[in-house]
Amino acid sequence: MRIWTFDTTLRDGTQGESVSFSVDDKLLITQKLDDLGIDYIEGGWPMSNPKDKEFFERARGLKLKHAKLTAFGATRFARNPVEQDANVLALLEAATPAISIFGKTWDIHATRVLGISLDENLALISDTIRFLKEHGREVIYDAEHFFDGYAANPAYALRTLEAAKSAGADVLCLCDTNGGTLTQRLAEIVADVRTRFDGILGIHCHNDCDLAAANTIAAVENGVTHVQGCINGYGERCGNANLSSVIAILEAKLGHTTIGPEKLTSLTSVAHYIAELANLPLAANQPFVGRSAFAHKGGVHVSAVLKDSMTYEHIKPSVVGNRQRVLLSDLSGRGNVLYKLQQHGLGDRLTDDAKRELLDRIKTMEYLGYELEAAEGTFELLVREALQPGMHFFEVVSFEVETRMIGNRDSMTSATVILRVNDAIHSATTTGEGPMNALDLCLRQCLSAVYPAIASVRLTDYKVRVISTEKGTASKVRVLVEWSDHRRSWATVGVSENVIEASWNALVDAIRLELMRISDKDESIEKAVEDYCWGV
Amino acid sequence: MRIWTFDTTLRDGTQGESVSFSVDDKLLITQKLDDLGIDYIEGGWPMSNPKDKEFFERARGLKLKHAKLTAFGATRFARNPVEQDANVLALLEAATPAISIFGKTWDIHATRVLGISLDENLALISDTIRFLKEHGREVIYDAEHFFDGYAANPAYALRTLEAAKSAGADVLCLCDTNGGTLTQRLAEIVADVRTRFDGILGIHCHNDCDLAAANTIAAVENGVTHVQGCINGYGERCGNANLSSVIAILEAKLGHTTIGPEKLTSLTSVAHYIAELANLPLAANQPFVGRSAFAHKGGVHVSAVLKDSMTYEHIKPSVVGNRQRVLLSDLSGRGNVLYKLQQHGLGDRLTDDAKRELLDRIKTMEYLGYELEAAEGTFELLVREALQPGMHFFEVVSFEVETRMIGNRDSMTSATVILRVNDAIHSATTTGEGPMNALDLCLRQCLSAVYPAIASVRLTDYKVRVISTEKGTASKVRVLVEWSDHRRSWATVGVSENVIEASWNALVDAIRLELMRISDKDESIEKAVEDYCWGV
Repeated sequence: MRIWTFDTTLRDGTQGESVSFSVDDKLLITQKLDDLGIDYIEGGWPMSNPKDKEFFERARGLKLKHAKLTAFGATRFARNPVEQDANVLALLEAATPAISIFGKTWDIHATRVLGISLDENLALISDTIRFLKEHGREVIYDAEHFFDGYAANPAYALRTLEAAKSAGADVLCLCDTNGGTLTQRLAEIVADVRTRFDGILGIHCHNDCDLAAANTIAAVENGVTHVQGCINGYGERCGNANLSSVIAILEAKLGHTTIGPEKLTSLTSVAHYIAELANLPLAANQPFVGRSAFAHKGGVHVSAVLKDSMTYEHIKPSVVGNRQRVLLSDLSGRGNVLYKLQQHGLGDRLTDDAKRELLDRIKTMEYLGYELEAAEGTFELLVREALQPGMHFFEVVSFEVETRMIGNRDSMTSATVILRVNDAIHSATTTGEGPMNALDLCLRQCLSAVYPAIASVRLTDYKVRVISTEKGTASKVRVLVEWSDHRRSWATVGVSENVIEASWNALVDAIRLELMRISDKDESIEKAVEDYCWGV
Repeated sequence: MRIWTFDTTLRDGTQGESVSFSVDDKLLITQKLDDLGIDYIEGGWPMSNPKDKEFFERARGLKLKHAKLTAFGATRFARNPVEQDANVLALLEAATPAISIFGKTWDIHATRVLGISLDENLALISDTIRFLKEHGREVIYDAEHFFDGYAANPAYALRTLEAAKSAGADVLCLCDTNGGTLTQRLAEIVADVRTRFDGILGIHCHNDCDLAAANTIAAVENGVTHVQGCINGYGERCGNANLSSVIAILEAKLGHTTIGPEKLTSLTSVAHYIAELANLPLAANQPFVGRSAFAHKGGVHVSAVLKDSMTYEHIKPSVVGNRQRVLLSDLSGRGNVLYKLQQHGLGDRLTDDAKRELLDRIKTMEYLGYELEAAEGTFELLVREALQPGMHFFEVVSFEVETRMIGNRDSMTSATVILRVNDAIHSATTTGEGPMNALDLCLRQCLSAVYPAIASVRLTDYKVRVISTEKGTASKVRVLVEWSDHRRSWATVGVSENVIEASWNALVDAIRLELMRISDKDESIEKAVEDYCWGV
């Protein structure tokens, strides 16, 4: 069955704590959601803030291939005639083909929050919808707090839907605004509404009980054909229904039609793209699209998955554009490490002794807090060093870096790096935007004449975490750096009590890895590594 | 109804990527779960690694008040008589009152993964359970892949349960090992099993379809009385059912008895404690226990919540030991900021001009990337500076910090800080474990004679994130530091292209805030601030 998808990342999503998009971000995300094949993209509330108003102005320049841009707003204020209500007029000015309007379903919200009578509330709903329909808009009516309202006063809750329907609403969307409705109960209520209203019913769930995806699916099983949510489950409090999960279930598990199987293969990359613009880490264990969603760690699971992946995977990861990963850890049997080496096509080139030594180095580094699982680049470097034991390219003689600030002026940072390259000494001194940048500039200056290829290696993310905090500011930190050379991306990791030393180690490893890759172009390694370093 | 809770954080939880506990961590978590009133604590798989074996040895010294410690293992290997099977004997050696045993339900797992006949698999199940029962253990039988097995071959799946039941299993636990079963289907299968077997049925769900909590609740609604999961939803791939959500729903929404309403009020602090030991951030939007679970950002929501909290909260946050928060952001109307000031008891002490200037400073800082929502300490400092405009305590004349490393030796860091305090110049030079530590030591040395109270302020966490990465190693970073003075905790934030400068700003703000607090002991501020800085 055709199920319509409605994404509210740009509106309800931004009501989540720490979720904030610039207007440029919002335009990029709109384009991306359109590419993904989303049917409706709710862009914001033009009356609530100038950013959303600007967004709709600039969005007119976008060429959307499929999606209908949607503006969000409230029913008219009680004292305003609809044609003079600034909120309603701003919706028309947004000039979108579709408009979503929320109204009050729950009797106490009308009386206590708005301070109006139940009949007045019905008039707000029908006046607003009728006015927007007269102006040729597709109208999605969001029945706010529908399930709580139905529980408190079912007859009145249904009357609000009747008011919206009679006024011409194209979709009646049932909202579990507070996220407190349990799945079984929600399914029963949806089934009741379905028997009373024809046309398109929608569902809008929040995740306060960890049930938003399940509730959305239960609503579809009871007759809903329009699903609202946010990619990655952003949104007020615990978030909205995670639209990535909902789409994957509807398409890949229930056989419904939403964005179609071809676009479904870009679901993982779109989810990561939006997380990147939100500047929030995408939870590794996020269903379907997370980095760990098809990652196997337990020894029993790993050996079974190597025999037949369906033993521990409910769908093929490629269906949603994700991939299988097998992790290193103290839980792993021999299977995990052997799998890694095979995946790199390096199994045959290492002697048993080299394998054992590699394993010992990995164990020691994990004991020191290196967390290689998250730093496949550092792991690849370990493997390549085992393959070519004498190959170091350069040796660090010394480095120093100093930051100085006087009064309220900007700080200044300078660094000096001395390297030995092919028995010659190279040194560089420079200033930079902070210690990592200054050291990076020096390192490249020393190496660029001998190894010009390193110019393409670029930092893309940088994260620091304290490992143990017993010692306050002297605690040990783990620095994780992500790099890209425009073809692929990888991460390296450094651990130290000194954040500078840890960062330096991650920097040197990234450069050395690039040089290793250039020097050993064995096709099978290159292929295995490209497949391995999944850079979304 | 009494529902039994079974926590597998220490076993299945550790199969999640990046989840790793030391033996000491595992002992602390066991104690904490016992305090919480969990019925069964699965501690590990004694045969799979030496860490789990050591855990069970040392766990004998724990005095558990309520919980039954549980060891986990597989049915005997096909070639071994049960009394000579090392895995089964290790389970007895673990000396726990309860044992969980997993066996194969899905026909292809028996034939393809284990390589044995279907009848042999039944013998493995019944032999193992009978043997453990003869040794006086309570036995929980985990029917691995029960729902997939039932879908593939229902008659055989039911025969494996029958084998376990006849051999004396105390609990038949139905496992959705691959996490691929949808809620409606799972409910139907549970209902079918319920009609065929009496005694205690259990449920063990994985979150690969974002449905683990819903599936667990659906199983209870169909006759299950034993629920398995992990606090915070740790576990293989997308994790296990989040036991914090499941317990909260069963107790607070469905009226069942698990840990009881009194212990339920410690759910939030236990979830944060375990996240702390796992060294993983607890998702802010995690249902019930997350920092944002009852956080309101949208202007409409905020003003309604201030009138009546049930308008946008499905339960009282205190029921699960959480609390309401109202956030600052560009979405907020005047309501949010006024709420913050009232919450601090400072509304009356600020003139309208001071309020406006404060708002401007906040807007500017957010524009620069400060993210004050996550840094309540920095926000409090802004407010206190607005209250006492002339009060700075000290002025930074200059600082410098240098890190030097020669060859493979450890790096050395030294710093010099010069401050003006009460018109006198104070300076200090010292070495430290990294730049943050060296600067911290200098700052304290300069200030300790004049302000001895700052000795109690201690760093508890330190995080760095790149804000925009267009500029590689010269990108702007945001440093977030968490502090504690043993009475409360708070966070400060610094933003700069230079990680040292950003860290320095967060450090200076934390110290200045502590001095502000000491100098202005207005009871109402102190009380509002303590209430405000929720340090879990």
